[in-house]
Amino acid sequence: MIFQLTCTRCGTSLPFRIRDIRCVCGGTLAVEYDMERVRRRLTQDRLRGRAASMWRYRELLPVRHDKHIVSLGEGWTPLVRLEAAAKSLSLGGLWIKRDEQNPTGSFKARGFSAAVSVAQEHGIRRVAVNSNGNAASALAAYAARAGMEAFVFVPRDCPRPIVEECLLYGARTVYVDGLIHDAGRIVGEGEAEQLWHHVGTLQEPGRAEGKKTMGLELAEQLSWQLPDVIVYPTGGGSGVIGMWRAFAQLRELGWVGERLPRFVSVQEAGCQPIVDAMSGRPHTAKGDSAPTGMRVPNPPDLELVVSVLRASGGTAIAVTGDEIGQARKAMGAQGISSSPEGAATWAAMIRLTADGWIRKREKVVLFNTCHAMKYTAGETEPVAVVRNYAEWAGLGLD
Amino acid sequence: MIFQLTCTRCGTSLPFRIRDIRCVCGGTLAVEYDMERVRRRLTQDRLRGRAASMWRYRELLPVRHDKHIVSLGEGWTPLVRLEAAAKSLSLGGLWIKRDEQNPTGSFKARGFSAAVSVAQEHGIRRVAVNSNGNAASALAAYAARAGMEAFVFVPRDCPRPIVEECLLYGARTVYVDGLIHDAGRIVGEGEAEQLWHHVGTLQEPGRAEGKKTMGLELAEQLSWQLPDVIVYPTGGGSGVIGMWRAFAQLRELGWVGERLPRFVSVQEAGCQPIVDAMSGRPHTAKGDSAPTGMRVPNPPDLELVVSVLRASGGTAIAVTGDEIGQARKAMGAQGISSSPEGAATWAAMIRLTADGWIRKREKVVLFNTCHAMKYTAGETEPVAVVRNYAEWAGLGLD
Ligand SMILES: Cc1ncc(COP(=O)(O)O)c(C=O)c1O
Ligand SMILES: Cc1ncc(COP(=O)(O)O)c(C=O)c1O
Ligand SMILES: [Zn+2]
Ligand SMILES: [Zn+2]
Repeated sequence: MIFQLTCTRCGTSLPFRIRDIRCVCGGTLAVEYDMERVRRRLTQDRLRGRAASMWRYRELLPVRHDKHIVSLGEGWTPLVRLEAAAKSLSLGGLWIKRDEQNPTGSFKARGFSAAVSVAQEHGIRRVAVNSNGNAASALAAYAARAGMEAFVFVPRDCPRPIVEECLLYGARTVYVDGLIHDAGRIVGEGEAEQLWHHVGTLQEPGRAEGKKTMGLELAEQLSWQLPDVIVYPTGGGSGVIGMWRAFAQLRELGWVGERLPRFVSVQEAGCQPIVDAMSGRPHTAKGDSAPTGMRVPNPPDLELVVSVLRASGGTAIAVTGDEIGQARKAMGAQGISSSPEGAATWAAMIRLTADGWIRKREKVVLFNTCHAMKYTAGETEPVAVVRNYAEWAGLGLD
Repeated sequence: MIFQLTCTRCGTSLPFRIRDIRCVCGGTLAVEYDMERVRRRLTQDRLRGRAASMWRYRELLPVRHDKHIVSLGEGWTPLVRLEAAAKSLSLGGLWIKRDEQNPTGSFKARGFSAAVSVAQEHGIRRVAVNSNGNAASALAAYAARAGMEAFVFVPRDCPRPIVEECLLYGARTVYVDGLIHDAGRIVGEGEAEQLWHHVGTLQEPGRAEGKKTMGLELAEQLSWQLPDVIVYPTGGGSGVIGMWRAFAQLRELGWVGERLPRFVSVQEAGCQPIVDAMSGRPHTAKGDSAPTGMRVPNPPDLELVVSVLRASGGTAIAVTGDEIGQARKAMGAQGISSSPEGAATWAAMIRLTADGWIRKREKVVLFNTCHAMKYTAGETEPVAVVRNYAEWAGLGLD
């Protein structure tokens, strides 16, 4: 075998397949690779000569033939070091992974480049997804690139720029009167009748593998010295799950040390199933936060997310809309634009350094998962319109 | 000397300086490097091991000390090959350079990373620019990163998401009742009194050098085999000027052949000074096209742009707003989102292949200079809101 599926809960192995990836035990099946084969083909030295794309990790992605790869220029996004902020927070290092600099303006491009490639390899022609928006526009783009028909379902308060991008790519796009899991029910119900391949979170094996590349890149960009803490805006949880698998695989290859980063899952107060589960509170499925990628009241495999956070020695934290707004400004003042999701990681980092959970001299990586402009709210405006320098000088802005 | 200034018109050389880069003859001064030094330090082999950033071409950028580099993760953007379109148009190859995948969502990040680094090296603390928008938000971001004060002046019809980004980065932002050259007059008038460093197009040496990296990257990404034609959305012209210098320098290094690409400058009908100048029509300074980066009625050095286009064997072409709209859709159907500027290059390419100016089997590169979402117009919407699968199926969208 080159790759197969293995249950993340009970360990059962099965031949690779592209749907029904829930094990009889209830756990999620994940892709496992022949690591001896990977070791022979993927060396750090070979990596250096490869293209700046997530497909540089070819051997750790579940596609057999290069000709099936569906690519739009995804991955190998910048990791920007924030020296001044690190210093004032007494951190050993602070970085932001600018994953908004991906096709379709979000990290979702990674998951869908992988998932659509897998689908392509298996002859799929019709794909469907439920999404808070970014997954929908990513599927729409990659399906268009592959010549597949795409059907996307998003809550009606999905930001307009995202919806317009879905339409631009030609996806059959509708609003759902409900939240992301209501949209998921529609895809599930229509699957058989419409011959849709369901590309929702943890419905097929490709997306989590694509997201894994965030972890692989991070490690390589930091010269295989992993940070102490990774702060990640979490919705369905596949980012956390994927990166955890990335680090486990790198450890198996002997490229990183034994100690892996502690994961912090950030959610927005009002929709915080992961925060609740981590602290043993009952699951409420409330979805009262703003319409961002973090608003996932019913994650498909909450138990798996929690087990990753626990295994990493991590935590989960809910920040408020106000904290997110302040964080956007704090990042903006450093020249970094961020989506609400990315700003939430800054807000969480501020709290966790203040209360000592993140310790002095630790190395911390934040993820900006999405382009700020998708959420541009139209709430600020320049102070004036001027015709000449004299008018400007009269404003007293200098 | 490591680098100096040389007049692009009369050839006079002067010591490097960061302002007053107009020669007594009227020509624009450009940075010239000690190419023997570059040859010793920059080899193709060394390049392979360098970071995926425009600063990999360090030796060809006018900054002396690494510590002055102001970076937010710019450059080394994807070059995506469009195989199907190339085939149906009988081209030897068609690529799109996704330069929207830069910080601040446009290629302007390159120019301002360079210009603000140069300013930093020379102790500048206050910077100002006139802009159609993208230059303003790029200056705002890089100035914030460098801890400088930024003052930006944009026409009042500048797209709101861009203006909001300027404000987010903390730039003193005002609308100008006029076009980009009216805004430029304000910066010029205030320069002395406000101690502004004027970072407008061709006002200082950094920006054109930063843009040069588009040409360097393109060459490296195509394994030093330059394309036959480059189609570029042109406003002030510094992109074309910068890339032309890039290719000249690569030729001097012996890394590319003698034959350089033909440049096509694309403008939108209603504001086409370069198109007019190329065909000998009188200069009208009309600015009646849509508010995009191409709307520059009075380019600072029109003669230089025209001389580059002529020397390359290139041309200039004006496309209509309708053609731009159709091109956005055509690109969207291939999974590529584009700004009006990027779509304009597709529209121009379609016309030039149809009329034979671009010949069969030629290799063509288009530039998407800006993120589509900056211009999301709110003109399309999903057909419906549904509550369940039955309602969806009732719509007949399958
Ligand atoms: C911008 C953004 N950030 C974060 C998330 C959370 O994703 P996940 O927890 O599935 O990795 C999403 C999901 O929609 C998103 O769109
Ligand atoms: C998106 C975009 N494309 C193209 C241009 C044209 O730039 P230039 O001709 O100066 O390279 C601009 C300038 O504002 C722009 O913002
Ligand atoms: Zn199981
Ligand atoms: Zn001169």
